[in-house]
Parts: sequence; C-alpha cells; structure tokens
Amino acid sequence: MRMYDIIAKKRDGIELTTEEIQFFISGYTDGSIPDYQASALLMAIFLQKMNTRETVDLTYAMMNSGDTIDLSNINGIKVDKHSTGGVGDTTTLILGPLVASCGVPVAKMSGRGLGHTGGTLDKLESIDGFHIELTTEEFIENVNTHKIAVVGQTSNIAPADKKLYALRDVTATVDNISLIAASVMSKKLAAGSDAIVLDVKCGSGAFVKDINGAVELSTAMVNIGNGMKRNTIAIITDMEQPLGYAVGNALEVKEAIDTLNNIGPKDLTDLVVTLASNMVYLGEGASSVEEAKKLVLENLSNGKALTKFKEFIECQGGNVEVIDDISKLPDAKIIVQIKSPEDGYVKSIKSDDIGIAAMVLGAGRETKDDILDLGAGIMLKKKVGDKVTKGDVIAVLYANKEEKIEDSKRRLLNAYTFTSEFVESRKLILGLVKDDKVELF
Amino acid sequence: MRMYDIIAKKRDGIELTTEEIQFFISGYTDGSIPDYQASALLMAIFLQKMNTRETVDLTYAMMNSGDTIDLSNINGIKVDKHSTGGVGDTTTLILGPLVASCGVPVAKMSGRGLGHTGGTLDKLESIDGFHIELTTEEFIENVNTHKIAVVGQTSNIAPADKKLYALRDVTATVDNISLIAASVMSKKLAAGSDAIVLDVKCGSGAFVKDINGAVELSTAMVNIGNGMKRNTIAIITDMEQPLGYAVGNALEVKEAIDTLNNIGPKDLTDLVVTLASNMVYLGEGASSVEEAKKLVLENLSNGKALTKFKEFIECQGGNVEVIDDISKLPDAKIIVQIKSPEDGYVKSIKSDDIGIAAMVLGAGRETKDDILDLGAGIMLKKKVGDKVTKGDVIAVLYANKEEKIEDSKRRLLNAYTFTSEFVESRKLILGLVKDDKVELF
Repeated sequence: MRMYDIIAKKRDGIELTTEEIQFFISGYTDGSIPDYQASALLMAIFLQKMNTRETVDLTYAMMNSGDTIDLSNINGIKVDKHSTGGVGDTTTLILGPLVASCGVPVAKMSGRGLGHTGGTLDKLESIDGFHIELTTEEFIENVNTHKIAVVGQTSNIAPADKKLYALRDVTATVDNISLIAASVMSKKLAAGSDAIVLDVKCGSGAFVKDINGAVELSTAMVNIGNGMKRNTIAIITDMEQPLGYAVGNALEVKEAIDTLNNIGPKDLTDLVVTLASNMVYLGEGASSVEEAKKLVLENLSNGKALTKFKEFIECQGGNVEVIDDISKLPDAKIIVQIKSPEDGYVKSIKSDDIGIAAMVLGAGRETKDDILDLGAGIMLKKKVGDKVTKGDVIAVLYANKEEKIEDSKRRLLNAYTFTSEFVESRKLILGLVKDDKVELF
Repeated sequence: MRMYDIIAKKRDGIELTTEEIQFFISGYTDGSIPDYQASALLMAIFLQKMNTRETVDLTYAMMNSGDTIDLSNINGIKVDKHSTGGVGDTTTLILGPLVASCGVPVAKMSGRGLGHTGGTLDKLESIDGFHIELTTEEFIENVNTHKIAVVGQTSNIAPADKKLYALRDVTATVDNISLIAASVMSKKLAAGSDAIVLDVKCGSGAFVKDINGAVELSTAMVNIGNGMKRNTIAIITDMEQPLGYAVGNALEVKEAIDTLNNIGPKDLTDLVVTLASNMVYLGEGASSVEEAKKLVLENLSNGKALTKFKEFIECQGGNVEVIDDISKLPDAKIIVQIKSPEDGYVKSIKSDDIGIAAMVLGAGRETKDDILDLGAGIMLKKKVGDKVTKGDVIAVLYANKEEKIEDSKRRLLNAYTFTSEFVESRKLILGLVKDDKVELF
C-alpha cells in the first residue's frame, strides 16, 4: 500500500477502505508518512468529504493509535460527557457529583488544555489539597466505592489525534465535520466509557455557528459512537453567550457549588439537569429520561449532589471546608466593576471575546507553559435580554495584576452590544440527536 | 500576509491575488513556507482550480524565482519549441538546424533529464567531440553567426518549479492543468525566447489522454505565453504510439540525420515540417505559415537543413564525418530481432512500455546518477496499421549488456497488440490552438 495512491483516491472522491485509513493513521503516528503527504490527504478529505463508514474507521484507527483504557473492573455502565467547547462551561464539575449521586459511576479522565480558562483539573486544583495522582487501582476502587473519581489524562491517549490536530491547525483543515468528529470521539472512546452524552455547542462562540452545522456534527459523532457499540446521544445547546455568569477557575468552582446547592444560574442549571438526566438514563440509573430527571432534580434539592461533591473532594485529598466557606478559594486582590455605557437591553455577548478578556487576566493559558492565576476571571452581571440603565454594572473583573486590566476591560466592552428595543432571552437547549432521530426544540 | 489564509482562501474556492501567489512562490522557494503548507495549497488548487489570471501570475512568479536569460543581444526573433513529452521524440535535433536553415535564430538551452532516453544534450553527445560548454558570449556569437547554438541549462532556471514538482510528485497533485502549464511555461519563459511553439502530445503515451484534455492544456499554455507578450501557439499531436521508429540516443541521431536528408519516417517528417513552419512564421522568416512550409520543405530536399546541421556540429567541436558515416556513432554489440507472435495487423503500441523497454537496455536514466549506454535502444519495424505475418520482425533491440534483454523483450511484446481486422494508420496532427482559436483536424 502506498500513501500516494491513498491521496490520489480521496482526491478523486473515491471512498477509502478500512485498511487504507488504518495505513494512513499508523504510518503518520509512527512517522513513516511525512507531514506533507498527510496535509495533502487532509485537504483532499476536507474538500471531498468522508462518509459515515470512513469516519467511523478513521476514529477507530485514531483511538487505537495509543493507549485505550480498560474500565471493565468498574461495576455498572460508565457514562462519559463531552462538550465541544464553550465559554464559562462549568458543567463537568457539577455533572460528576450529580450523576454519581444518582448511583451511576463517573470515571473521569480529564486534562488541562489551553484556552479561556483552565481545564477541569485546573479548576479542581483551586480547592486546597486536591490531587489527581491516583494509581489505576485507587481510581477503580474510588469509583466502585464512591461512584466518582477524576484522574489526569495519560499523554498517550490517541497520539494520532494530537499530531493530526497540530497539522490541521496550520494547514486550514480544521473545520471539517468528519475530522472534528473523529478527533473528539477517538479520545472519548479511548477513555473507555460504555456510553457518551455529547453537549454540542452552537452559535458565534462555538465551532458550529448555526443549527444545521450542529445537527451535522452531532449526527456524525452519534453515528461514530453507535458504530462502535457505545450508546451515544448529543444535545445541541446555545453558545451565543457565555454559559452561567462565571468565567475563571475559582469563580467557576464557586458557581458549581451554588448550582449543586440548587441556587445556581438558571441556564447552567437547566443544562446540567438535561445532561445529567440523559447520563443517568444511559447509565441505567432510571428507566426513562423523565424518571432520571425527577431523580436529578431531587438530588439537587435534597443536598445529595452537594454531599457527593464533598465526598469526592475529600477522597482525593481536598479541603472540604472550602465548599462550605468559599472565601477559602483563591481570590483576587483587584476587583473592577464594568458599567453599561448606555440605556437599553443587552442584545448580544460575544462569548469568544469574553473568554479572551478572562484569559488576559490570567484565567487561561495562551501557551502550555503559562501559569494560571486561579483567582482571576470575570463575573457577568447582565446577560442577553437583560434591561440595563447607563452606569449599571454589567460585569466584574477579578485580577491580581494591574497591567492587563485595561486590555481586558476594552475586550469585555467590545463583547457586549446593546439595543433600545426589547430582546427576548435566549433558548438554551436547541435539539437532541439520538440514533437516526433529530429532534429540534 | 499568512500562508494559512492563502490556503483557506483557495480551499473555499476564492481567487488568489497576484501578491498572494507571489508570497507563496517566494516563501516556498526560500524555505520559509514548509512543505506541509505547500502541499495543502497544491491539493486545494488541484480541486478548486485556478483561473487564467491566477495561472499567469503563478507562472510569472515561478519564472522569476531564479535566473532569467537575456537573449536581447541575439538578432532577430528567437523562437523556442517545447514538447510535453513522448517516446521516440527526436524533433529537437531536427528542428534546430531546419529552422536555422530558414534564417530564424535558434538559441536553445537544453537539459539531460530522466526518462526513456537521454535528453537532447545526451543525444548530441553521441557525436564524438561535441560539447555544450559555451560561455554566454560564445553562445550569443554562435547564434548571431550560424543561427544556431545549444547550451546546457543552468541549474537556477525556475528553482520554484523544481521544488514544487518534487512535492507534487509525492502528493498526487501533478495532473492539474494550471500546475502543469505553469511548470512548463515558467521554464520556457525564463529561457528568454520571444515566441514559443508547443507540441502537446495526446494519447495513452502522454499526460493528456484525450483531445479535450489536450485542448485544455494547450489553451492554458497559449494563454500564459500570450499573457506575457510572447507569441505562443500549440500544436496537438497524437501519442498513441511512439513517434518515428527509433528509441535510443545514437539511434535517434541516425533517424534525425535521415530526416534532415529527407529520407526519414513519414510521421516524424510531417511533425517537424508542421512545427518548423510555425516556428519560421513566428520568427518572421516567412510572411505566412504556408510560405514558411514551402521554405521548410525546400530546405529538406535541397540539403540546406543537413548542411546547417553539420555547420552546427562542427561549431561546437563535433566530428562532422559522423554525419556522412553513421557507423561512427556509438553502436551495440548485441542485436536481437523481435518477431510477431501472430498474423494480422498491429492494433496498438503502448508508447510508455516501449520507452521502458528501451530504458532497461541502458538508453535512459531511471535515477539521475545512472550512466547512459548511448548505443542501446530499440528500432521499431512495424507501427499501428501495418500488416504482419507470424514471424515477421516487428522490432530490433540494440544492447551492450546481456542481462536486461529478456526483460526488455517481454516489455516490448506486451506493448504490441494485434488484431485480425484491418486497422487504419493513425492521424498525427490533431489540432492547433492559437490566440482564442481552437482548430481540430
């Protein structure tokens, strides 16, 4: 088999075989296929597309390019969740304990990553003493005993994806449904869960800008998951503005605690209830999604979800007192109120710009060597549809260093647009993709 | 300007600007743009195409990526010829002296190259003493005095083309009309001639397999030439079988001498007359193509073309006696007759396979370090449409080494197909592309 022939075939719009896709992924991972041939194939795939069968095969080959995790020693059906990236997305912190409190095991592998804020691990490390260095045995035992554990991602999960993503990023071949779906799913599937709930963000702050793109991406990922016998569903959610109010590490932990206390922001609560209900149903913690939702809502109001969060934090060395006294979380010395420049209604909030405004304060990493400021970030006070009067506080910046505040403020004000006309608040849950069925709300 | 944005633009089917194309070519030539970005762009160009304006700009940028030759000290209109590659193509050896004998200057820069036989330089070196090491002054003086000189190509003609061709060759991005046209024309234009006659081969032995492809490629190249104010025409010729009878270096020199003596193969003679007539017309050696043809035919029959060949050979140190006594050319110790395995008519002869059969005998280089056997090659005895009886000699192999003969024989026999039904001989000149006009014969 020759890489040249594989490129020529896809260039001509011909379906690649399983063996050809396997040859490409293993050759590219081991370095025998050079970057310049891989990028030519990626562009051919971008323009000529891949069908469902090819996309499943690509995912399978990428998943098997490195370690795959065996969770079979954990009792029950392991359900994982993945969000396609958004701003102020604190859902994992809340979903883990919430789903575990319903009796469904949560065996989470998590990373740090680049972006507007840190990853789930960074956020958890806002809690004094919390650590993620667990042996495989400890990890499995924790999940079997407490229904929840979080461990750092090994570096050898889907190395083909890591290498391909870096190449796509510099050759304008990122935004292809098959390549995105295979990238996300190869990592999720390698992490060993039995079922997956996907939270596909849709809107100006997300990869897919409109509902058609979101349905297409959701369908591709659900097909991959089901094609590999992992029960998979996708929920399409609005990302035309940040989720919740908090953007930052300790700030999001506080918001997560509020939400587990049943006093969180309405949009964030609605989303975690929807995701958790589907996870609990797929994990066979309830006989229907409706039953699951009842249980989820109960555990938010009766305190079981928050209790599970404390149990989880304690189990991994964290100081539980923080949860009852959030003043013990990392904080910020400088607090700056940002005021509305006009009267009217908030018309839109560009999520990406809010994310960058938080990152420049130290909440996120621009390069992987940057050190996070866990106390830094932004609390939004007004969201789309809110009425404002000139001088009202629309957001608050939290920082420990003076020098980036002006930059952050400028970006934040640029992110907001106002109008004198009434604006409806936005709908959050836009659709559901399950098996071959697409349901839009 | 960023290469990423240029890739994304072409990927989306948007026309690139002159500056963007210039940025790509100069960056790729100086190494600041890596192979993997260049190959992604090449695949995007392959699939989204380039229009005439972009193709002209690409050619211009490639032409200027290295040296351009200044022939302005040569009197008259300098006309160059280019063939898009075929088997047994001895035309350059004949056209040079023939056109020069009509008073039109031939300032030829020629290479060695890989392939079925050597390049024009290799063929000329079959003549004892002939050399191509001329200073620029000698070269110009020779053309001014004798109307003809041939010099070795400098290595810095269109280096962008050399680098891009090597990349296209391994990324399945060779067969695109714009990229082929720009590759050919950038080198021809850098070589400094005022007008160009293109011989575009069409058929199974050529890059373009059918007449539509040939018209498309011809039009693209004529547009480029005219777009750069060099009078350019293209003649489309059949390459469903080798041209003439000889495939090999000394063998083709003999055939060239025969043709200049007006006793050459009919197809080869027809082609050189057509090409020479157009070259003489563009070089203003006659007031119309018809007048030019008269002059060309005269110079073939009255001996002036052959005399010019001798003058040219002598002028560059070659032993002129060879021309009157071709037994002084390099020869072959082993001569093997290949006989027809059946009765009937020759139905087809696969040119590529004949070329490879000659190459394995030593007539051509497979890699650039291979040493040619100038005496080796093949003389075809039967061509398409010829009647054969089982046992008739269809071809003769000339070799100096025993070991590759069986391989060559097998390939040669595979190249021929026979039929019991009458087969018409093939038409050679298929069309003419000039300005915006396409004429098919």
